[in-house]
Amino acid sequence: MRMAELSRESGVPIATVKYYLREGLLHPGERTSPNQAHYDESHVRRLRLVRALLEVGGLSIASVRETLAAIDSHDRTHDVLGIVQHGLPLNRGSADEGTEQWARRRVEEVAAMRGWRLDLRQAPVEALVGVLCTLRNLGHARLVDALDTYAEAADRIAESDLEFVAGLPTTESIVESAVVGTVLGDAALVALRRIAQANISARRFGDERRG
Amino acid sequence: MRMAELSRESGVPIATVKYYLREGLLHPGERTSPNQAHYDESHVRRLRLVRALLEVGGLSIASVRETLAAIDSHDRTHDVLGIVQHGLPLNRGSADEGTEQWARRRVEEVAAMRGWRLDLRQAPVEALVGVLCTLRNLGHARLVDALDTYAEAADRIAESDLEFVAGLPTTESIVESAVVGTVLGDAALVALRRIAQANISARRFGDERRG
Repeated sequence: MRMAELSRESGVPIATVKYYLREGLLHPGERTSPNQAHYDESHVRRLRLVRALLEVGGLSIASVRETLAAIDSHDRTHDVLGIVQHGLPLNRGSADEGTEQWARRRVEEVAAMRGWRLDLRQAPVEALVGVLCTLRNLGHARLVDALDTYAEAADRIAESDLEFVAGLPTTESIVESAVVGTVLGDAALVALRRIAQANISARRFGDERRG
Repeated sequence: MRMAELSRESGVPIATVKYYLREGLLHPGERTSPNQAHYDESHVRRLRLVRALLEVGGLSIASVRETLAAIDSHDRTHDVLGIVQHGLPLNRGSADEGTEQWARRRVEEVAAMRGWRLDLRQAPVEALVGVLCTLRNLGHARLVDALDTYAEAADRIAESDLEFVAGLPTTESIVESAVVGTVLGDAALVALRRIAQANISARRFGDERRG
């Protein structure tokens, strides 16, 4: 199909398709003349994935490019899961040594309780230590008491994530599902947490409001 | 204290403090002369909160302004929890009517299983429906099978969130803790999910790599 049809089929405006081509988010079509190229189903599918990662997943253009490179390199699932670091706070903020040590110890305790090895993926561990330091610096260190509950919930979710991924047939679909499931899974989890909070909050505090 | 001391005490550069003042993220100091103002502990504390929401929480300037307004208005917890919508995908993307109905039905089933009322907070429900539509449009509808597991995990986390908040003494601390816990809790949860995934993935797929 030509560019105009690709745009219609995918629902992405022509100017945007051209932008994605320039940014390397979409593979070039097969050139049929100096001013024309031919696109196929793989382009439609890729455009849908790009839109999902950008709009629903909230990834930056650079993160989408990295993520697609991971999908295209057909890496093993074990490697690919590490690449999707979207949603992790990268700016750690500053913390004094005592706070930093306290946070690391707390993360190590949680890991020991769950049987996790912490040297596997550096970025998420650093991110978690940063969140704990920030909570303590804000005077909300007691919020960290909930970390075990959070870790247990994360373990159940990850167990379900891997269960699903392991049941898929080909390496390609494993990798794409892992990426899509990780990015959109974060979005689903945040939404579900808000819905659950609103419900429990209404049960606990709702009666006061009628008075 | 003067501006220079406020900057030293909070670790925020003077130009940035002035920017936050202009953007309404920091309340003005008490003016002592046409060119000088006096700041106190409340300014140091507010600056730390602003940095945490911006850097670790990943909120935009506009979201921080809304969030601080919620804290300052001393609303009841029940109302405040609804304001912190950070992390929810706002761009729904387009879905045909059949997909939309399928997604709504799925969300209603999950809500029924958990005893949730869905009319309480519109934005997270819309966000969740959007995520499900996107998954289906990408050909990953089977990932939605995990929704019950996600919802159960979200319920446990929210239960722990509210348990903590309800135990706090004053309304002001409830509101600030609710906001900080919601925003930084998302960041912690995402990091924990990655750590858990990496560990389970290594256990499942790790052996293949050595061969």
